[in-house]
Amino acid sequence: MKHFGDDLAAAVERTGNPVIVGLDPRWEQLPDAMTGGADDFATRAQAYEQFCNGVVDVVAPLVPAVKPQAAFFEECGPAGMVALGKVIAYARSKGLLVILDGKRNDIGSTAEAYARGILGRDGQSAWEADSVTVSPYLGADSLEPFINVAKDRGAGLFVLVKTSNPGSHMLQDQTLGKGPLYRIVADYVEQQAEQTSGKRGYGIVGAVVGATYPEQLAELRTAMPQTWFLVPGFGSQGGTAQDVAAAFDQRGLGAVVNNSRGIIFAYRSEAYRERFGPQRWQEAVEAATKEMIAQLRAETPAGNLQPS
Amino acid sequence: MKHFGDDLAAAVERTGNPVIVGLDPRWEQLPDAMTGGADDFATRAQAYEQFCNGVVDVVAPLVPAVKPQAAFFEECGPAGMVALGKVIAYARSKGLLVILDGKRNDIGSTAEAYARGILGRDGQSAWEADSVTVSPYLGADSLEPFINVAKDRGAGLFVLVKTSNPGSHMLQDQTLGKGPLYRIVADYVEQQAEQTSGKRGYGIVGAVVGATYPEQLAELRTAMPQTWFLVPGFGSQGGTAQDVAAAFDQRGLGAVVNNSRGIIFAYRSEAYRERFGPQRWQEAVEAATKEMIAQLRAETPAGNLQPS
Repeated sequence: MKHFGDDLAAAVERTGNPVIVGLDPRWEQLPDAMTGGADDFATRAQAYEQFCNGVVDVVAPLVPAVKPQAAFFEECGPAGMVALGKVIAYARSKGLLVILDGKRNDIGSTAEAYARGILGRDGQSAWEADSVTVSPYLGADSLEPFINVAKDRGAGLFVLVKTSNPGSHMLQDQTLGKGPLYRIVADYVEQQAEQTSGKRGYGIVGAVVGATYPEQLAELRTAMPQTWFLVPGFGSQGGTAQDVAAAFDQRGLGAVVNNSRGIIFAYRSEAYRERFGPQRWQEAVEAATKEMIAQLRAETPAGNLQPS
Repeated sequence: MKHFGDDLAAAVERTGNPVIVGLDPRWEQLPDAMTGGADDFATRAQAYEQFCNGVVDVVAPLVPAVKPQAAFFEECGPAGMVALGKVIAYARSKGLLVILDGKRNDIGSTAEAYARGILGRDGQSAWEADSVTVSPYLGADSLEPFINVAKDRGAGLFVLVKTSNPGSHMLQDQTLGKGPLYRIVADYVEQQAEQTSGKRGYGIVGAVVGATYPEQLAELRTAMPQTWFLVPGFGSQGGTAQDVAAAFDQRGLGAVVNNSRGIIFAYRSEAYRERFGPQRWQEAVEAATKEMIAQLRAETPAGNLQPS
């Protein structure tokens, strides 16, 4: 039986690193050669598919997982969603785990419809993702359907706990009797992770915890010993390898760190622009991915991973 | 210039009622004649389109708006999203306002991608909805992009404030110094509604407030005088016409009340099963819609509306 917590651990150990590449296609930042045609939704959607699959070709041998951002595909309407389906299938075919970043939520049987549609491979679902991000504002009865479907299908989910954006203070940091609001979500997630714990000590219910709040990251690692962390905010948003070091256990497991723009649009960055430029954008993706892997291996317990 | 707050008021006044019909297609509950073919995602998606358009045909002359639930279409994968696009377009073509129930959220430019993709008619967006539901856990910087795009395009949004499900107590009811957490969201939404107020006294930023918590509904109506309420939880979830009476202003404006299952699957209910049955399911939709309109007009200030 598949177990997402174990599958993620196996993928991190096989590749020897915890890097997640975020597939956030943005029309304005695609290499010029891909945006030359008509500028309509169908053309954009096709370019997104071509671009994301091009990223997948480069990173599949290097990292454990990719995280397609549903918003950019949805922006292109139905054609974009068709492209998203193809990108997910292509990433899977290359051996990558796929975490769909959809921040979905709803109540009861509606939440179950999202979960059934998104989670589970090999014909179990329409989208065939291994995991999905979920927002908790609606409460436990909006999370349970995702957890139940994930259990049944060997899939997982990541619940937003403490996000990387400045505005996360508005609700998440509100002080209650015993601490900030995000700890209520954290305690619930840890309980669910414990109840679904696999062979490597981590459950199928994970948490999104931003790289931009290193103190909270360390606090939550201690409070949530059986919870996988999906850590956004590295790179463009300011999080460094040192900032995320506390997210890992001593084996180098327990956290995966996402980078979207810093990798997929590396050809536009100061570090790689002159070396590669738009035509060799895939080489820039490769160089940026390897650089991030090296940083995390050098400055976090991810260095203890022994790639197979 | 279009203004969603005014457009919704005009639609409620034209039809003389505040009923929103939720388009929540559920495979198991569709009339038998629609589920006879192969049971794959493409077939389901086609049946959802046929069924929802059939509901639209009946309710377009009766109510101001419909609310397609994205989850059920997404459950069918890309084919489902193609069907969703067609249902939205069909509802618009029949003169209905369309509120997409997606409970979307994300940060910064990603939130903007959702907003740009969903909001605005006549080629402004790929989905062409008039309004969308948005979840606030990520904070103000996840809501602002939706508000800004809505302003630019004459569209609107409804932010989850106090939802209708039992689990809503987990975060929304947490007590802070000055009151429950949902009041932080409520205060922010009211401020935004005030800043975008139209000719009828309501802004383009609305709030989702459940029918199942009548006391909070009354409290929030007082606290949020310029905010349109989208009220779920009527009917199947237990909310009655009396429960939602406090959501309206004296003109009968200020709130729209959603009913999904109780209307679209009325042919299965005790009240209408024998009278209509599966073959005459559209007549059951019509009867249930008219019954809800009559209830709200009899027991709430919606009775003060003078249909034109």
